[in-house]
Amino acid sequence: MRDVVVIGAGMTKFGELWARSIKDIFVEAAMHAIEDAGVDHLDSMYVGSMSPGLFVGQEHLGAVMADYLGVNPIPATRVESACASGGAAFRQAFLEVASGASEIVLAGGVEKMTDGADVTDALATAADQEYEVYQGITFPGLYAMIAHAHMHKYGTTREQLAAVAVKNHRNGAKNPNAQFGFEVTAEQVMKSTMVSDPLRLLDCSPVSDGAAAVIVASADVAKQLKKKPIRVIASAQASDTIALHGRKDVATLGSVVKAAQNAYKMANIKSGDVNLVEVHDCFTIAEIVVTEDLGFFEKGKGGEAVINGWTSIEGKRIPVNTSGGLKSKGHPVGATGIAQIIEVYEQLNGTAGARQVKNAHIGMAQNMGGSGASCVVHILEAK
Amino acid sequence: MRDVVVIGAGMTKFGELWARSIKDIFVEAAMHAIEDAGVDHLDSMYVGSMSPGLFVGQEHLGAVMADYLGVNPIPATRVESACASGGAAFRQAFLEVASGASEIVLAGGVEKMTDGADVTDALATAADQEYEVYQGITFPGLYAMIAHAHMHKYGTTREQLAAVAVKNHRNGAKNPNAQFGFEVTAEQVMKSTMVSDPLRLLDCSPVSDGAAAVIVASADVAKQLKKKPIRVIASAQASDTIALHGRKDVATLGSVVKAAQNAYKMANIKSGDVNLVEVHDCFTIAEIVVTEDLGFFEKGKGGEAVINGWTSIEGKRIPVNTSGGLKSKGHPVGATGIAQIIEVYEQLNGTAGARQVKNAHIGMAQNMGGSGASCVVHILEAK
Repeated sequence: MRDVVVIGAGMTKFGELWARSIKDIFVEAAMHAIEDAGVDHLDSMYVGSMSPGLFVGQEHLGAVMADYLGVNPIPATRVESACASGGAAFRQAFLEVASGASEIVLAGGVEKMTDGADVTDALATAADQEYEVYQGITFPGLYAMIAHAHMHKYGTTREQLAAVAVKNHRNGAKNPNAQFGFEVTAEQVMKSTMVSDPLRLLDCSPVSDGAAAVIVASADVAKQLKKKPIRVIASAQASDTIALHGRKDVATLGSVVKAAQNAYKMANIKSGDVNLVEVHDCFTIAEIVVTEDLGFFEKGKGGEAVINGWTSIEGKRIPVNTSGGLKSKGHPVGATGIAQIIEVYEQLNGTAGARQVKNAHIGMAQNMGGSGASCVVHILEAK
Repeated sequence: MRDVVVIGAGMTKFGELWARSIKDIFVEAAMHAIEDAGVDHLDSMYVGSMSPGLFVGQEHLGAVMADYLGVNPIPATRVESACASGGAAFRQAFLEVASGASEIVLAGGVEKMTDGADVTDALATAADQEYEVYQGITFPGLYAMIAHAHMHKYGTTREQLAAVAVKNHRNGAKNPNAQFGFEVTAEQVMKSTMVSDPLRLLDCSPVSDGAAAVIVASADVAKQLKKKPIRVIASAQASDTIALHGRKDVATLGSVVKAAQNAYKMANIKSGDVNLVEVHDCFTIAEIVVTEDLGFFEKGKGGEAVINGWTSIEGKRIPVNTSGGLKSKGHPVGATGIAQIIEVYEQLNGTAGARQVKNAHIGMAQNMGGSGASCVVHILEAK
């Protein structure tokens, strides 16, 4: 496999973008990425999106976006893996460049969730319709069960969950693209409206519109463009049972464990070598479970890590979700995986502004779908 | 890029499969493909599906199918390009093996269209929602406009359109997996119910349930398994405007022309070297336009070719849609592109039974989405 690098990035602000269509926001992000990379053409493109059919009545999103971006007749394909659609789209772009089939590929992600569709219903299609959704459960309930299992097994506390939201909002307040770019206190989190016990409103990532795009290229292209090479040193993906009840232990996400193992192996590094990580904090409990399953903390110690400040931007172990995460930055599902790559790319480029992590050489992005039935992990390195 | 081969195939019968779920039919096709290939594991899998969200309320189909197929924790991703979703899934599997990232990858496709959803509405999401669908047009109308343009420009006749249906039903009558495996006469076609002038009911492919899967592998794996190597010598994809009105000439499908050019270049062959082709005959007019745009006939001569019998199984130019095509075999949209690959694979393997083309060495599959906004072309060769 050839070396693959990221050479440009662009995204919209995340939020309730009622005045603009799904096409408008994708094109905005893609144009920024193309401009940032300084490329004069694309060989191919991928669009990660979970459910444009249910959200805005438009499938065939690869072709739609290629047309509105003005890049016909290049190949354009939509990739879907529920909330991991963005990460999966990035992986396909990586594989295409790695194969030698293309030199310059755009990997984008987009979701328009606030245009009137029943969002909870549409998101529930990422769970097992037959054995979960038809029985009445939706995602806050599924993650609440994960939270209860984790609290029961490891003693994780309500305060630790709140600490995730507090940290991510503190980071997001420094991110101009964040939907909820303000700070919150632990008390506010713990007194917010109950959604599904123990998860409250401020434990949940918001419903968002947004788009993000990066330009993936061969090392040769990066050299010609005189770009600092931010190499993709690992791309790994794994799956788990679609329904939560199919798993032996619901306090661990098997797809995260597996994808991380494969990613470390491919990159030939250990978890201790990673300088920052963006994780899929769709709910506060998810960040705690995921940081453990990625190997950054002993199982059951993820809650302690965040409340002790070890995962803050200046934290002594590993900065987690410097972008604000899904919690504060927003979670337009198909765009999330690409936005994570953008944060890692900017951190490794030294352009993360007020959120900059010192001496960031290796960064990871972990994006997952459903209650962890799919997980994509990428590791990038600045050289 | 490494050599990539197809080593196994399986599909369900296409039709109204009311007694079985989308999971059931995908697993049936995938199990047949795995058994046919004789592999004991998969490294990864792709599921082509256009709109399981709108048809059956289930997204996240990669993870769902990996789970029900019992192959967790392998990577599993859904790929969507409207009615070209199957071809696009095959292309991703090809790129993954070509890159060296995986040795054995399943490429499947599935759609369950008869379970109660508004099919015309769901399919319309493959067109431009804003500028086509909201104005009231759906796919029969779009292809009717293509037909009128072609008739006006080249003198294509109503009889020539009917000849496509007659030939494809004659082929499909020899295919045990065909939904409508019976013959029709030109008179029946021309007297069938008008759908959108000039297209009548028997000019249209049916609404179908079905699944199909193939196993894609490296040449090394094929050698170990002592399989006759059916090599993928070209994989090409192209895009065009999503809306029909954006094109200079609606009697030509630009994405087909472009994908074919790239495919011939990659395979280093000419159209005359191809021994059989499966084309995307969602409507009879589509087969005529596509066979011209793939370079098999001079522009405007596709109708004449079919009525003269040049595209029949024993035809003197090139057998087209020996499987029965979408018209007779059925068109479960996400499965179609994979089912085309299966027909080509069986023909090159010499296992196509009553439909067998003599001396078939090189075969092509052309799969498209919407009114041609996306097109995927693959060329396979038996060596």
